[in-house]
Amino acid sequence: MALIVHKYGGTSMGSTERIKNVARRVAKWHDAGHQIIVVPSAMSGETNRLIGLAKEVMGQPDPRELDMIAATGEQVSVGLLSMALLAIGKKAISYAGWQVPIKTDSAFNKARIQSIDDVKVRRDLDAGKIVIIAGFQGVDVDGNIATLGRGGSDTSAVAIAVAMQALECLIFTDVDGVYTTDPRVVPEARRLKTVTFEEMLELASLGSKVLQIRSVEFAGNYRMPTRVLSSLTDPMIPLEIEANSGTLISFEEDTHMEQAVISGIAFSRDEAKITVLAVPDKPGIAYQILGPIADANIEVDMIIQNQSVEGKTDFTFTVLRNDHAKAMDVLNKSVKAHIGAASIVGDTKVSKVSVVGVGMRSHVGIASQMFRTLSEEGINIQMISTSEIKISVLIDEKYMELAVRALHKTFNLENA
Amino acid sequence: MALIVHKYGGTSMGSTERIKNVARRVAKWHDAGHQIIVVPSAMSGETNRLIGLAKEVMGQPDPRELDMIAATGEQVSVGLLSMALLAIGKKAISYAGWQVPIKTDSAFNKARIQSIDDVKVRRDLDAGKIVIIAGFQGVDVDGNIATLGRGGSDTSAVAIAVAMQALECLIFTDVDGVYTTDPRVVPEARRLKTVTFEEMLELASLGSKVLQIRSVEFAGNYRMPTRVLSSLTDPMIPLEIEANSGTLISFEEDTHMEQAVISGIAFSRDEAKITVLAVPDKPGIAYQILGPIADANIEVDMIIQNQSVEGKTDFTFTVLRNDHAKAMDVLNKSVKAHIGAASIVGDTKVSKVSVVGVGMRSHVGIASQMFRTLSEEGINIQMISTSEIKISVLIDEKYMELAVRALHKTFNLENA
Repeated sequence: MALIVHKYGGTSMGSTERIKNVARRVAKWHDAGHQIIVVPSAMSGETNRLIGLAKEVMGQPDPRELDMIAATGEQVSVGLLSMALLAIGKKAISYAGWQVPIKTDSAFNKARIQSIDDVKVRRDLDAGKIVIIAGFQGVDVDGNIATLGRGGSDTSAVAIAVAMQALECLIFTDVDGVYTTDPRVVPEARRLKTVTFEEMLELASLGSKVLQIRSVEFAGNYRMPTRVLSSLTDPMIPLEIEANSGTLISFEEDTHMEQAVISGIAFSRDEAKITVLAVPDKPGIAYQILGPIADANIEVDMIIQNQSVEGKTDFTFTVLRNDHAKAMDVLNKSVKAHIGAASIVGDTKVSKVSVVGVGMRSHVGIASQMFRTLSEEGINIQMISTSEIKISVLIDEKYMELAVRALHKTFNLENA
Repeated sequence: MALIVHKYGGTSMGSTERIKNVARRVAKWHDAGHQIIVVPSAMSGETNRLIGLAKEVMGQPDPRELDMIAATGEQVSVGLLSMALLAIGKKAISYAGWQVPIKTDSAFNKARIQSIDDVKVRRDLDAGKIVIIAGFQGVDVDGNIATLGRGGSDTSAVAIAVAMQALECLIFTDVDGVYTTDPRVVPEARRLKTVTFEEMLELASLGSKVLQIRSVEFAGNYRMPTRVLSSLTDPMIPLEIEANSGTLISFEEDTHMEQAVISGIAFSRDEAKITVLAVPDKPGIAYQILGPIADANIEVDMIIQNQSVEGKTDFTFTVLRNDHAKAMDVLNKSVKAHIGAASIVGDTKVSKVSVVGVGMRSHVGIASQMFRTLSEEGINIQMISTSEIKISVLIDEKYMELAVRALHKTFNLENA
């Protein structure tokens, strides 16, 4: 017998029929002798409906009042799921965030969890009840409802698992795990049985949007084994099969032995490149260029500064594609004349491809194998950035799929 | 400057456009220097939608979990109204029932308010804020959400007005007050400027469904002046006109001087009559007949027992029309043979007409005037029941409109 947390997303909770399926799946786990806490999201579409109403009365909704409204979606979900369990003869009880309580700071719409009281929940579990806790929400020190922001239910589930010292946190979703790359680009892409938290962070931030990134950080910081698995299977699939399905996000030391050098190939089309040409190469030039960009709330990803030639250098960086026009505008208006740049050129037809794997820490030659592969395919590398567990390159977007397929093959990901 | 509570029903809150109108009306009252607390219902249709979802997952929804879900309708309303006020430059803050807190007992779906904490609300009012409090809901001693049942927002508004020692509670609704009778039956029906709590109780329970009856009891017990008025007027109607519009439900002594003898004619089509014929007239016979009816959760209204003839009597009572078949069934199966009744006959084609007025306490001859009027119209009276402030008769339903019109005229209600 173990304590296990289940999390179900909006699609899994999308109708009363689907909620009944969730109840059957949860009951199966409880019948096997486990203590179960369930954290459901709002029914799909509900959060958008509520935010839409808010925007109709106030163009920029007040953050506190928006949380008051948005939190109701999950409150309805927990009540419905609890009733669906009661209807099939299980003992169950639902809690809104403030009832647990899940205490947060007062950063409405993007609050962070500070503490979770386990007294009520522990008592209910010991009484044989399945406990349903609203994700995405908590209560601040003044008794205001605060929500964690989009995808916050993942974070709630992991945080509750940590607070309750659960054995594992199971994130049931509409994909069946984390893949070596997007199967729509590489049909041979393989589901990973395990991935480390660090790899998952890189894979998530680079476009494999399976889990909210904050929940992965949380799971990593508190070393909570977290599994991503499908909620679309028959709910009565044997538990021992389900318990080993999907992808387990775990600790490096646990999984290192069986770990391939490279875990996956991530990519992003959502990139744009900006180059400031022939800038006088003086101290502070990077700040003079990127300061106004940061002030405009534009996030910068890759940055390179060329070797100086005759006291002039070129400065290149990337931004999200829909920030490109704004960034060009900032530079042309506030920066160009001021720093004495010759010109500023932009390119929105670029993509980023990244090779990710904790194994590359202890393996030399990954970068050179990556560059050789791209070279053999005739793909020019425009920018490079590296971290301990990934190497990213910026390339012409028309070669993106080709690059991903070639790298997937060269690192033998379909067979690992 | 006074503290005033506004309550808005589901129709008034039925869309974001209507919520903006509510905000304009509330702001007008605040601009005039009043402190304002607003208690809105859920947007029309929302509570039914939520209960419908609950019934889809559990035929007989668990009461606690149903309240968890049902309470979200009002929570969305308070957030939206607060934002609509902020959007037009007012200071505002919303509270769910548990945030105030409004403490209730644990009778889920039909909870009763036990206490209301005024500290937060008083602080906000003193800071110039308009305070929006979710109606229909509270929190029990264990931190569970409990709702007050259908129409409970009226009760919440009056209870909050009492707790906050408000000057007046204004119930904005889609009718513009309480009438001498239903204008669809008597076009000359006149809106009452004032009505006593006792009269309102009789008028409400007899079919003028303007206010939840419990809210009227509450207002009466705590002597809270409560006004029913229209939310369908232009929100910018001058405040001094609006403040005197509708119908004020007040205390007898306040209004007696200007009070007519009769305030209104109530009626109900929802009646059925059952007669148990030729029962041996022994002590305990009423209990033997009505005990099984009560056990079947059927409410009995009027009751008469005929003068005994040769040791036999007829026993007649009325029930709500949709309880008629069930009541006949109970009597035929469990009662008839046991008590030795000759037969049991039912009649679902009856209606009740009542003359209501506190003035009849001090005026003799009301009953005889009523009976004479019905006699002159050739209407046979089947049953009679009286209280201090009303006389009810049961008649053939085909004469109901005729009876109401004749009584409205004979008591001169169109001109009072």
